[in-house]
Amino acid sequence: MAKENKEKKVEQITDMEVDFTQWFTDVCTKADLVDYSGVKGLFILRPYGYAIWESIQSYLDGRFKELGHENVSMPMLIPESLLQKEKDHVEGFAPECAWVTVGGSEPLPERLCIRPTSETLFCDHWSHVVHSWRDLPMKYNQWCSVLRWEKTTRPFLRGREFLWQEGHTIHATEEEAREETLQMLDVYADCCEKLLAMPVIKGDKTNKEKFAGAENTYTIECMMHDRKALQSGTSHYFGDGFTRAFNIGFADKTNKISYPFQTSWGMSTRIIGGLIMTHGDNNGLVLPPRMAPIQVIVLPIAAHKPGVTEKAEEIVNRLKAAGIRAKGDFTDNSPGWKFANWEMKGVPLRIEIGPKDMENNQCVAVRRDNREKTFLSLDELEARIPQLLEDVQQGLFDKAKKNLDEHCYPAFSLEEAKTLQEEHGGFIKTMWCGDLECEMKMKEEACMTSRCIPFAQEQLSDVCPICGKPAKCMIYWGVAY
Amino acid sequence: MAKENKEKKVEQITDMEVDFTQWFTDVCTKADLVDYSGVKGLFILRPYGYAIWESIQSYLDGRFKELGHENVSMPMLIPESLLQKEKDHVEGFAPECAWVTVGGSEPLPERLCIRPTSETLFCDHWSHVVHSWRDLPMKYNQWCSVLRWEKTTRPFLRGREFLWQEGHTIHATEEEAREETLQMLDVYADCCEKLLAMPVIKGDKTNKEKFAGAENTYTIECMMHDRKALQSGTSHYFGDGFTRAFNIGFADKTNKISYPFQTSWGMSTRIIGGLIMTHGDNNGLVLPPRMAPIQVIVLPIAAHKPGVTEKAEEIVNRLKAAGIRAKGDFTDNSPGWKFANWEMKGVPLRIEIGPKDMENNQCVAVRRDNREKTFLSLDELEARIPQLLEDVQQGLFDKAKKNLDEHCYPAFSLEEAKTLQEEHGGFIKTMWCGDLECEMKMKEEACMTSRCIPFAQEQLSDVCPICGKPAKCMIYWGVAY
Repeated sequence: MAKENKEKKVEQITDMEVDFTQWFTDVCTKADLVDYSGVKGLFILRPYGYAIWESIQSYLDGRFKELGHENVSMPMLIPESLLQKEKDHVEGFAPECAWVTVGGSEPLPERLCIRPTSETLFCDHWSHVVHSWRDLPMKYNQWCSVLRWEKTTRPFLRGREFLWQEGHTIHATEEEAREETLQMLDVYADCCEKLLAMPVIKGDKTNKEKFAGAENTYTIECMMHDRKALQSGTSHYFGDGFTRAFNIGFADKTNKISYPFQTSWGMSTRIIGGLIMTHGDNNGLVLPPRMAPIQVIVLPIAAHKPGVTEKAEEIVNRLKAAGIRAKGDFTDNSPGWKFANWEMKGVPLRIEIGPKDMENNQCVAVRRDNREKTFLSLDELEARIPQLLEDVQQGLFDKAKKNLDEHCYPAFSLEEAKTLQEEHGGFIKTMWCGDLECEMKMKEEACMTSRCIPFAQEQLSDVCPICGKPAKCMIYWGVAY
Repeated sequence: MAKENKEKKVEQITDMEVDFTQWFTDVCTKADLVDYSGVKGLFILRPYGYAIWESIQSYLDGRFKELGHENVSMPMLIPESLLQKEKDHVEGFAPECAWVTVGGSEPLPERLCIRPTSETLFCDHWSHVVHSWRDLPMKYNQWCSVLRWEKTTRPFLRGREFLWQEGHTIHATEEEAREETLQMLDVYADCCEKLLAMPVIKGDKTNKEKFAGAENTYTIECMMHDRKALQSGTSHYFGDGFTRAFNIGFADKTNKISYPFQTSWGMSTRIIGGLIMTHGDNNGLVLPPRMAPIQVIVLPIAAHKPGVTEKAEEIVNRLKAAGIRAKGDFTDNSPGWKFANWEMKGVPLRIEIGPKDMENNQCVAVRRDNREKTFLSLDELEARIPQLLEDVQQGLFDKAKKNLDEHCYPAFSLEEAKTLQEEHGGFIKTMWCGDLECEMKMKEEACMTSRCIPFAQEQLSDVCPICGKPAKCMIYWGVAY
């Protein structure tokens, strides 16, 4: 019964050219990444989906700690009065909070919201423990889930609950805090480019798009296979707005009371949605080897023939001993079913070993990304397979980079921007005067939001193509998830 | 200012003989483990407290995965109707749920409770994905926090929110599920005894004390320094009660519909409370070396003298290179302050190095548990320090085991049990007829709850000392946290 179900499911994936949204949902469910729960927008991460998150976690957590950050755990509930302490922040988040009003059998004297983000909690804590310049910086991170009561929801891309990490730091000087903000953006960019093979554009969010309460929000923007944008990680500089509102005064070296400068930065399971939409194809998920929970799947062919299963097991064990995340599929499913299943799950490399291969002291390695077959001598597995995995990693990055580079179009009028977006999708780059009005006009007339003011600026012209006034910077526009 | 504060805080710890409860709270706050949040019973785990949890997590997560369990993530919210599907379960948990009634600005059509535990969520998910015997077993775990709206709360010991792991598994046969239940109890016992140096008594909970909805609850019980009991980890066998209620039918090998047998098991940050109350002393926390976030603190003495700081740094680096979690304290606090601070934090070994030591090519190692001083030649650090750390580990276990062994008293009447408890505390062991009535009587008259029916049974007599009827088993009684 399950077998039958599974065979069906491999066949049932929708082509991305037919319906990209349905393709995405199919991959999420049929690669066993998620299941739907009884509450809209709250998704179950199944073992394979969670293993992908653990792989990202492990990379980020290591980087955070190397850079001197410490993990902590904050409460999941925020009293309404605490959320209200910073004006811009509460305006941004209150409309999408979920509220606890009853504890045990008693109505609560004050509503508590499930954290949508934890700036207020960190600041409240810091107001208890920060006294002197000696206590700074405090560089904290937490791994948790947060809730935002969104109207439309999709697995990974928009959940009412999602897993993330949120870094929160305070520093004695503005300079140090600004440095931290940019450093953490770089960590996210590294995570995307080096681990996930997802090229990014780094930049500054406009005032309209920045985080509620922040002075600056920096972002990494990725381009998906359908040429839409995915904001993949953000890092915020807060100045001392919150620390004054929460009265986190500290005695500086001259014994004068100062207020620390603050940052926060987050990356969430949303990035898994990005990973799927960057590398996936019509056979399912495609995972970059550096982060794949299973890097090599070993399949015995004609497994009933003498010695085949044993040889396949031997290969798995040799690869594991060489530090490769290898797994053998010794179930009684057919080879065809196994091919489809492990392709669906995006395992970067498939090794096939059958009686004929054994005679020739070889096996077949098939790349998931381009289906290229290589015959490998069994004597050189430990040497060749890591190289093949790195080739897949590089191949995925190059392909995604090509997609990004080929779909960034300069435009010199609103009309041109609109037409380019409609005809090609992708990112449209224009000059910009910096006014909200022009940003709104682009949204209303060309259905694009500003993605970022990239760090890598180009001087396309001198004027804003929307209003004709002098331009202040180049900006990217796009249709975003 | 901070310096002054901290010096005060080291002095302000209450002696455990004077007020054990206050001593515990002092250690929690003054060793920088926790802070109080704005919501009663929701505690902040500060970096040092969270690092202790990470150390326990890392041990358990490794063991779970070795045994074939996979991590997943379930939603934090449970619809009221889902919680109600298993009768005993909802009766046990509904009275202490926190309820979300508003999402965004809208009242919700159905109340959602923040998970107090996730059996219902796992079962709901399994009802979607389990079809055949090929899908079994499913051996899942999740790391998360849960909420239980308790009246009285204390850091670690009783929080309305606490961090834990909850394992949930389903199996094709009762035998396999029962094996899993006991296996996971053994993992918890190993965690306590081998990692945390906390000796345990393993046993079965009585019907009265078992988990809501379980057929059997197995427990490990530890004895604290004040001779009270701490239930430190539990593993539950559910039979097929939930799987039938949630209709998780599967086609067995004969294609007949069967219902799987279920287990769940959990360990929480409560164990950190146990760790504090098992090993701590009047100078603060004492951590077992195998789990201590910092195993060795290196202090330069007369750090302004030439070469001292460099030598201390060299020692730190050598220890780190040898795989020891070492840290140097190069702040400008006084040596006395540093001694007190790192003792408060329970670092198992302190290394002091000053100009005179350097002349003699040695350093001083001071054990946290018994303050024993050893002079170590600088040539043999890598050889001697791991041994010293193991000595501390063993010393802590032996001391705790002695406390446990010396405070288990057999009793042959209710009166004797009561007197023994009042005079000595500890665990009172008696025979028991198995009736709830006698269990209630022990509670009402001797203020003790049943801790467990130990696996290691003794035949103290033939009759229940409470009612005089024939005894079925030996049972431990105690006053519990």
